[in-house]
Amino acid sequence: MTDENMHVRKGVDGSHDGMTAPPRRMFRKKAGQPPDLAAIVTGITNGSMNELAKAITYIESNSPVHYSYGQELLQSLLKRTGRAIRIGITGVPGAGKSTFIESFGLMLCEQGHRVAVLAIDPSSSVSGGSILGDKTRMEQLSRHSNAFIRPSPSGGTLGGVHRKTRETMLLCEAAGYDVILIETVGVGQSEFIVRGMVDFFMLIALTGAGDDLQGMKKGIMELADAVVVNKADGENKLPAEKTKKDYDQFLHMLKPSTKGWQSKAFTCSALKNDGIDDIWNVIKTFQSLTEASGVMAERRRSQAKDWVHTLISEQMNQYFYRHPYVKKHLADWENKAMDGAVTSAKAAEKLFEEVFKHTK
Amino acid sequence: MTDENMHVRKGVDGSHDGMTAPPRRMFRKKAGQPPDLAAIVTGITNGSMNELAKAITYIESNSPVHYSYGQELLQSLLKRTGRAIRIGITGVPGAGKSTFIESFGLMLCEQGHRVAVLAIDPSSSVSGGSILGDKTRMEQLSRHSNAFIRPSPSGGTLGGVHRKTRETMLLCEAAGYDVILIETVGVGQSEFIVRGMVDFFMLIALTGAGDDLQGMKKGIMELADAVVVNKADGENKLPAEKTKKDYDQFLHMLKPSTKGWQSKAFTCSALKNDGIDDIWNVIKTFQSLTEASGVMAERRRSQAKDWVHTLISEQMNQYFYRHPYVKKHLADWENKAMDGAVTSAKAAEKLFEEVFKHTK
Repeated sequence: MTDENMHVRKGVDGSHDGMTAPPRRMFRKKAGQPPDLAAIVTGITNGSMNELAKAITYIESNSPVHYSYGQELLQSLLKRTGRAIRIGITGVPGAGKSTFIESFGLMLCEQGHRVAVLAIDPSSSVSGGSILGDKTRMEQLSRHSNAFIRPSPSGGTLGGVHRKTRETMLLCEAAGYDVILIETVGVGQSEFIVRGMVDFFMLIALTGAGDDLQGMKKGIMELADAVVVNKADGENKLPAEKTKKDYDQFLHMLKPSTKGWQSKAFTCSALKNDGIDDIWNVIKTFQSLTEASGVMAERRRSQAKDWVHTLISEQMNQYFYRHPYVKKHLADWENKAMDGAVTSAKAAEKLFEEVFKHTK
Repeated sequence: MTDENMHVRKGVDGSHDGMTAPPRRMFRKKAGQPPDLAAIVTGITNGSMNELAKAITYIESNSPVHYSYGQELLQSLLKRTGRAIRIGITGVPGAGKSTFIESFGLMLCEQGHRVAVLAIDPSSSVSGGSILGDKTRMEQLSRHSNAFIRPSPSGGTLGGVHRKTRETMLLCEAAGYDVILIETVGVGQSEFIVRGMVDFFMLIALTGAGDDLQGMKKGIMELADAVVVNKADGENKLPAEKTKKDYDQFLHMLKPSTKGWQSKAFTCSALKNDGIDDIWNVIKTFQSLTEASGVMAERRRSQAKDWVHTLISEQMNQYFYRHPYVKKHLADWENKAMDGAVTSAKAAEKLFEEVFKHTK
């Protein structure tokens, strides 16, 4: 780990992540008529895909005025959110997340569930690339009328991607989707972000726990309510069973991710549609147990609270790093601190004072 | 991992961690004469323990006026800092960190080095307890005229403890200590904090790598420039050698903590003074290599830069969470978000605007 990684700093780009940017006004002069937000709300509650997509566009937009439309819609729809089971899915690239989601999602759609698939891609905030971008990866699911697939929002900070996905999830709930699947890749902070917005978090793993356990950060294992060893078919079936047992042993030693729930490992073959229904049964058991114990409600309340603090922290960072003085002089003060001309404390103090001197 | 742990929030206490607190003035009316700071600077540069201790008291004080004295001293002494080798030492409780430091520190003192031992104790910010608090743990070292031992500052946030230790390190360097040892216990964020202020980071480990590797977060291993398997004496000698080999294998798979340096494992017996000199030779090799390659200078510059951003982030947090409006209304807004009466974004926005509405 290099020093640069030790403090995660928010990138400063021109995009609007729902944060207050000091140097410009919140509302620009509008070009046309404002949209009929009430009609969009009605459309979403009636299950209109078009209106849902429009609302998500506002949520994902980098324009401040669109952002405010999105927030207004969300506030109007808030009472209709929260009725879905929220499932997070992670795993290293190649573990078969997409195949699993395709198979799992189709099964649920066939059962009459309405399934929304969202994604958080940490790389999309850097490269603009996006998981789920290629819809053909879930070809059948994407064509099912009960499914809604939305790729990871791209561009902006990871915090911005986080906000957009979280709010899109709420919109999908208001539109009547009762199963939300949030996919992320097994690197960096994104698992923690997804764990912080879902009820049930699962790790899709490959056969060969020995290698996996070493490659996998233990911290991620501690987040999981279940580990699913995928590709348990053909010659791989026995090794997958062995891997499942290794994971079970490992999970048993860890503090449970959810109070009152022993995380366990399972095998399945998404390709052969084998064992997929068992996973859904596990999730349903998890749901009834945690609803009965109050752990589900407690977690959601705690997530909503944490979310307030996360947003405030993001807002402060963006306020600071977008301030004209900081944009102009940050590098000077950094250099002075690096050269040993001033203490880091002095540099920090000067920057802070310049930005906040007009606060009382 | 519970949801509560997923966002580390800064505790709000009454202490002064070097941050600007909006509701009160930076400088209170002084009771007596200000201290003769120039005399303290001279004292420190002449190696006076008394003046060093006085300066550290200012650095560690929770009084804003003392804080400013500390900063002034630091600024005056800045040119004299940076000449020591900075060594971080971590390990689970019971790994023998104190015995190692006693043995290692004494050897260096006997060789004519001046050794300062500092500590960062994550629990001290909560409990007020402190590692190194019990000087008898390093009885001989603490009596040596070339050694200076300072327990972890207690009280305040972890960020405050961090700042105080980092600045105390600089004061010790200005006072002529040429080896700085910073001890921390192997839990939570403190390793990352210590890694962010030292040149060389080592992990003291116990025999039985199998258990250790599982109990140990892989992330911590990635920070280490060396793993030292302690207590390699008597019947434990062979198992320790085996453990060392396991660690070597593991370290070989990881990305090196320092560019151009392959982290390795070593055995020693701090109790029997066996292998301690080898560790020092490793550190000296590390030092010449990284000085020659420029990696040392690059790391220190990057640390100084990161430190500016860390302080700014701390300052913003404290500014926000100590603001009268936030103190009074934070819980209301949290509850509204938790009850689903408003979106978390709305709650965050309201709080943010109330605090920062007077900024232009």
